[in-house]
Amino acid sequence: MKKTILTGIKPTGQIHLGNYIGAIKPALQLAKQKEFSPAYFVADYHGLTKFHQADEFRHLSYGIAATWLALGLVPEETIFYRQSDVPEVFELNWILACFASKGLMNRAHAYKAMVDNNEKMERNADFGVNMGIYTYPILMAADILMLKTEVVPVGKDQIQHVEIARDIAESFNHVYGDAFVLPEYLVQEEVAVLPGLDGRKMSKSYNNTIPLFEEPKKLQKLINKIQTDSLPPEAPKDPESSIIFTLYQQFASTVEVEQMRAQYLSGISWGEAKKELFIVMNRFLEEPRENYKELIASPERLNEILLEGAQKARTISAPFLKEIKEKIGFSV
Amino acid sequence: MKKTILTGIKPTGQIHLGNYIGAIKPALQLAKQKEFSPAYFVADYHGLTKFHQADEFRHLSYGIAATWLALGLVPEETIFYRQSDVPEVFELNWILACFASKGLMNRAHAYKAMVDNNEKMERNADFGVNMGIYTYPILMAADILMLKTEVVPVGKDQIQHVEIARDIAESFNHVYGDAFVLPEYLVQEEVAVLPGLDGRKMSKSYNNTIPLFEEPKKLQKLINKIQTDSLPPEAPKDPESSIIFTLYQQFASTVEVEQMRAQYLSGISWGEAKKELFIVMNRFLEEPRENYKELIASPERLNEILLEGAQKARTISAPFLKEIKEKIGFSV
Repeated sequence: MKKTILTGIKPTGQIHLGNYIGAIKPALQLAKQKEFSPAYFVADYHGLTKFHQADEFRHLSYGIAATWLALGLVPEETIFYRQSDVPEVFELNWILACFASKGLMNRAHAYKAMVDNNEKMERNADFGVNMGIYTYPILMAADILMLKTEVVPVGKDQIQHVEIARDIAESFNHVYGDAFVLPEYLVQEEVAVLPGLDGRKMSKSYNNTIPLFEEPKKLQKLINKIQTDSLPPEAPKDPESSIIFTLYQQFASTVEVEQMRAQYLSGISWGEAKKELFIVMNRFLEEPRENYKELIASPERLNEILLEGAQKARTISAPFLKEIKEKIGFSV
Repeated sequence: MKKTILTGIKPTGQIHLGNYIGAIKPALQLAKQKEFSPAYFVADYHGLTKFHQADEFRHLSYGIAATWLALGLVPEETIFYRQSDVPEVFELNWILACFASKGLMNRAHAYKAMVDNNEKMERNADFGVNMGIYTYPILMAADILMLKTEVVPVGKDQIQHVEIARDIAESFNHVYGDAFVLPEYLVQEEVAVLPGLDGRKMSKSYNNTIPLFEEPKKLQKLINKIQTDSLPPEAPKDPESSIIFTLYQQFASTVEVEQMRAQYLSGISWGEAKKELFIVMNRFLEEPRENYKELIASPERLNEILLEGAQKARTISAPFLKEIKEKIGFSV
């Protein structure tokens, strides 16, 4: 039996290369393993805790769906759906709330961080906290438990989400017998961290990112901004300490990487190195970029793909919710 | 245009005459007024915050539905549905959570009472509080707003529920324009409070109740337990201070009440007065009792009635939720 593996995709702003290398690529690779039956969902309703502007909300949802499809998510081989198209999740959300202690929520990292910040600013502890933010670990538990998920790939900072889902599932199972599958988390340790233009981790908050689907000219310009030292063109250079080389490694073939390493050691100008980086990066990005442009231009097509996925998800969620409700006492 | 008036019916244990006179009867009367278009819902999912035993849960839901039907709720003239049959309510529940500040929940009476009690017992403030209990004012807001309710009849202790619903609706409307109808509460001032067997307010917590659907023999026995003084049979008695007379007034005709008053003043034995009370009470209860027995014996029939009501409710909730979602940015 294959294990159900679920990845939640939160709609956020512009996706950059660091997101791809650090999160999207490993998630897509993991789901391809034979032992797994993968499901992905666009967590659009989670976005509602933050985004209260209709155009932005719509744009972010379709944007993230198009991004994953453009980068290789094959909807036919997975369950790829939008959270908001599976109403059973929200009914389960209420059921789970009745089995989640408030103490559990008080300990959630994201909420605690907000409280800490409010206290630092000498404001009321709950200042700016809406109930979506406070209760989202329950909705996340509903996302996970609704599809009988067995494995949830997470970053280290998200382990708690899976623990909370397990905790609530156990409380319910304790009362009604084995109803929910207890999910396990899977931390992908060997994930690469991409440097940004300034050598620090590529991150929106450092303003040092290379957006995924930039046009070639803009991409070239951004690459030209990568910080280098002032060594003359002919001087031998250390590949390991070079941002350009680190990025090059992610997109070039093994043979190309070895050739580039040799060029570094014998001397290559930074301009030349940047040109080579552009060539391999652009080579990789060309197809996804075109795919993305095509997809984002036809939201109807995206919608169709996502609704087909929701139908698949509901073949699981609808009968399972019925089962859960019978256990609670809803049957005649 | 008639105003939509919504009454939530929480499944609780055995219903007594005090519940009927103090809540059910005035609610049914109010809904009959020409200006209103009434809806009633069995708040079964609210019961899940407390009842975690399947048989009890099922029994309470069907019991309360049968009770209201037996007492004169005409499903054809209202929207009479079960909360759990209207999935749109739970999706709206999440939407509203994203527009409800946590501070608003912290001030909810029921939660505050639990915290106060915990503090008195020197326990953690959130001891025993599950997230269903903490967040139920949001679900209640979803119940109210989903049907575009304009008027909510409440007891004084429930005014806050309507205020919270308004508050959340206003937050949403403030962002997206007029989406939700702002509900108003209606306190029924002239509602009678029925005395129990010992003269205090009839209440489960005083253990002084007369259950609604007791068999005649048991009803007679209970009436015989009503506290009286030791005046001899032939002595004139004060009708106004008599529990028996107060109860008699609720079930006898005006003529009967006047005759009974005269008998009190000229002298009636307590035994005789109790017999008369039994007669009028039983006369009133006979038909509802039979109705109730029939209904509770066929849960399939109850289910059918409730599902028909849910269909009516969903002709409002389904398109309205779609409208709300379009405002948020879910449309293509």
